Amino acid sequence: MAEVSPEVRARVQASFDRQGLMTHLGARLTGIEEGTVRITLPARPEVTQQNGYFHAGATSAIADTAGGFAGFTLFPENTSVLTVEYKMNLLAPAIGEYLEAVGTVLKPGRTLTICRLEVFAVRDGQPKLVAAGQQTLICVDARPEQ
Amino acid sequence: MAEVSPEVRARVQASFDRQGLMTHLGARLTGIEEGTVRITLPARPEVTQQNGYFHAGATSAIADTAGGFAGFTLFPENTSVLTVEYKMNLLAPAIGEYLEAVGTVLKPGRTLTICRLEVFAVRDGQPKLVAAGQQTLICVDARPEQ
Amino acid sequence: MAEVSPEVRARVQASFDRQGLMTHLGARLTGIEEGTVRITLPARPEVTQQNGYFHAGATSAIADTAGGFAGFTLFPENTSVLTVEYKMNLLAPAIGEYLEAVGTVLKPGRTLTICRLEVFAVRDGQPKLVAAGQQTLICVDARPEQ
Amino acid sequence: MAEVSPEVRARVQASFDRQGLMTHLGARLTGIEEGTVRITLPARPEVTQQNGYFHAGATSAIADTAGGFAGFTLFPENTSVLTVEYKMNLLAPAIGEYLEAVGTVLKPGRTLTICRLEVFAVRDGQPKLVAAGQQTLICVDARPEQ
Repeated sequence: MAEVSPEVRARVQASFDRQGLMTHLGARLTGIEEGTVRITLPARPEVTQQNGYFHAGATSAIADTAGGFAGFTLFPENTSVLTVEYKMNLLAPAIGEYLEAVGTVLKPGRTLTICRLEVFAVRDGQPKLVAAGQQTLICVDARPEQ
Repeated sequence: MAEVSPEVRARVQASFDRQGLMTHLGARLTGIEEGTVRITLPARPEVTQQNGYFHAGATSAIADTAGGFAGFTLFPENTSVLTVEYKMNLLAPAIGEYLEAVGTVLKPGRTLTICRLEVFAVRDGQPKLVAAGQQTLICVDARPEQ
Repeated sequence: MAEVSPEVRARVQASFDRQGLMTHLGARLTGIEEGTVRITLPARPEVTQQNGYFHAGATSAIADTAGGFAGFTLFPENTSVLTVEYKMNLLAPAIGEYLEAVGTVLKPGRTLTICRLEVFAVRDGQPKLVAAGQQTLICVDARPEQ
Repeated sequence: MAEVSPEVRARVQASFDRQGLMTHLGARLTGIEEGTVRITLPARPEVTQQNGYFHAGATSAIADTAGGFAGFTLFPENTSVLTVEYKMNLLAPAIGEYLEAVGTVLKPGRTLTICRLEVFAVRDGQPKLVAAGQQTLICVDARPEQ
């Protein structure tokens, strides 16, 4: 997996930092490579569902974001990324100290990019795949209008 | 659309209230009917993505939850609901005073229930469909083991 | 639902007729309106799965095609339609004299169009919803290169 | 990847042979391992869309079937497999001498099994990933009623 340039890294981190939701959930960007981004979400009562596990909404939010930024690492300058759609299977109860979402570009494209989404729950240091999905992204022009 | 019994209403509200994520996002249960549940999420910086719109993760979280409870209104006592999987298309930027997610049972079943998911962004009182999806739920035994 | 122009109708029918698979399965275009297309598939051993029901692959093939043409009715001249992705829930065994797939545009767009997909199995004249899904289409330039 | 027993192999092949659609399309079972099944579909006019490429419906039909049998290799005796839902991204035009669909179990389960679906188009001996998806299967009792 190739390193990204400092410019791309800064661009991804700045965009992540502007996402109020990620900060509010307590999520952190923990890996930025070409076509692969990782996001970590520590367990806390604020991200649970009714049984105390991670809420599917939280699991999906970090998976969608990881995929979006994975695509974004491959986009040209002055573009932005939007999620067209995604699909997630919740495979097992999401229990652990933290979740790690991994977004990986499966098929890059000029307009559309397809990513694989995986979320692992890490418990006692052991990762377990708890969600898997697929996502379609679109690259849009982000230049300010003149 | 039929009214639910007070027991079902109480069961749904209690389960919603145990979801730390819904409270943390600021979401509220605003409609409980047989096979249809509505959840409202007011706009606030804590639920945004990088452009200040509602984050797809927040949009999806309330859609998934609305669908889950829509199914739950039809489940027998002493059962619980889990999301097997869902798919969401983000149709338009989610901008407005608040979002309303509507989960509707499309096909009830003893084991699996399929729901339609819709999210409207309400701006100046006008609802606009900003996300649409489909969800598979499973009904699981929730009796305490003996 | 608005009628389509004779030009659009001819364009859709001609494209359908070029699809070897539709002819091979025995499918027929049975409705072309603006944003809605219907395809009918009679029961025959050639379209079954192991229990003698309609095969999910046949069900999906006509649903995907109905959605694609539903989008195509709204596309400008000299364009073509490609399926980006779709998701189908198989809701009930597909048993009957014939299937009717209905593709309906949920959200038209210049680049991407989102459709709802429904398949009904008709038995003794009674339609039953046996599959439901959602589809993303892309409009591509179809002018011959010069 | 582990070999399957002769009994499982015979069970999978017999079920495949009962699928009228697979025969009608010209598809063949080309690999049966524990949790992984491969199906090959040679190019012919009967499986094309309007541009002469493999039709998304044909691509999906063999992908869905490969995933279904991949799950089936892990199911106990006297059970049957049904597709609950699947999602496919069509990544590139499906052009080539033949398609190979690979279904792989991602998460086995007593009731639900989740598979990854991949379809490669093989052209001049070179495989290219042209479709990728994810599928949910359910294991149902297949004992004759008494």
